[in-house]
Amino acid sequence: MNYPTGIKKEHRQIINYSHRGMTLEDDINHSNNYYREKDIAYIYKKPTPIKVTKVDFRKDRTSTIKEAFYQEPSTTDYNGIYKGKYIDFEAKETKQKTSFPLANIHPHQLKHLENITRHGGIGFIIVRFSNLNETYLLKEEDLFSFTEKQKRKSIPLKYFKDKGYLIKENYNPRLDYLKIVDNFLEVK
Amino acid sequence: MNYPTGIKKEHRQIINYSHRGMTLEDDINHSNNYYREKDIAYIYKKPTPIKVTKVDFRKDRTSTIKEAFYQEPSTTDYNGIYKGKYIDFEAKETKQKTSFPLANIHPHQLKHLENITRHGGIGFIIVRFSNLNETYLLKEEDLFSFTEKQKRKSIPLKYFKDKGYLIKENYNPRLDYLKIVDNFLEVK
Repeated sequence: MNYPTGIKKEHRQIINYSHRGMTLEDDINHSNNYYREKDIAYIYKKPTPIKVTKVDFRKDRTSTIKEAFYQEPSTTDYNGIYKGKYIDFEAKETKQKTSFPLANIHPHQLKHLENITRHGGIGFIIVRFSNLNETYLLKEEDLFSFTEKQKRKSIPLKYFKDKGYLIKENYNPRLDYLKIVDNFLEVK
Repeated sequence: MNYPTGIKKEHRQIINYSHRGMTLEDDINHSNNYYREKDIAYIYKKPTPIKVTKVDFRKDRTSTIKEAFYQEPSTTDYNGIYKGKYIDFEAKETKQKTSFPLANIHPHQLKHLENITRHGGIGFIIVRFSNLNETYLLKEEDLFSFTEKQKRKSIPLKYFKDKGYLIKENYNPRLDYLKIVDNFLEVK
């Protein structure tokens, strides 16, 4: 649409304000909702695994959990289906400006992504450098070749710039990461 | 292996005993572990969604949840990848002997399975009639055609016998449901 310049500018500011303080998780959930509403893809965040140890049981389905503990997830946070393909990824934010510390991803999550890719799925990580306001998608294959060859405990930003894909932020979907997945699908 | 007849019989008895009291969920988790160990498929049960309202935070990762509530799952319980295909299903037990009450499955779960199948995934339900000791796999397509045509609130056992697949119980994997999925994949 052709807004007068002044309004367009104001519109842009509103968008920026609405993004401020949004976490990567918010942005991905928002994008996944968009994909579902438009019947593009069915990708969900898995619930956080919690071990329940005490419950006040009630018959009316309003049981209250009185004691529980967070557990380590055995897989990645997000999975689902897109264009008939199994999609699986982990998303992390870092405040670092030059590298992404690998301690943010559990070794069994790396192994899981490798298993998925070997079996024909699309596996990747999404990493946001929050202080740079840059979000990258890195394919499992490139993640794996880094961790296998290098003994370094973090992935340099340069590696994301070279091997990864910068995901542009939009209004809706906020993070159109499936646009990047389309590139992989075309190659296959 | 060729055991003397007596031992073979005893062996069978042990297997039966070990199965006694096992829930459908136990059997499916056990089978999924087997599939992973043998590098056949990567299918996991999703954690139960829980809304946490009070937490005692601690720095050493041992935070205790003091109040939380069970939430309704937005999708099905199990999903993953097998032979490059996205797999998605819900599993339910019933004590009924002649039919499976549809109240056991939420309408949004039915909708989810339909979305998955429409996008090229393999969607189904696994239903155990625990008092008959019979477990069936019913494809989403057959589930959908039942719920669309019929106004009945339960699916008769006969429908499972006609349209579904009886899953044999084994020692390992306990419920080899992917053997049945193989049939669908061959047809496609």
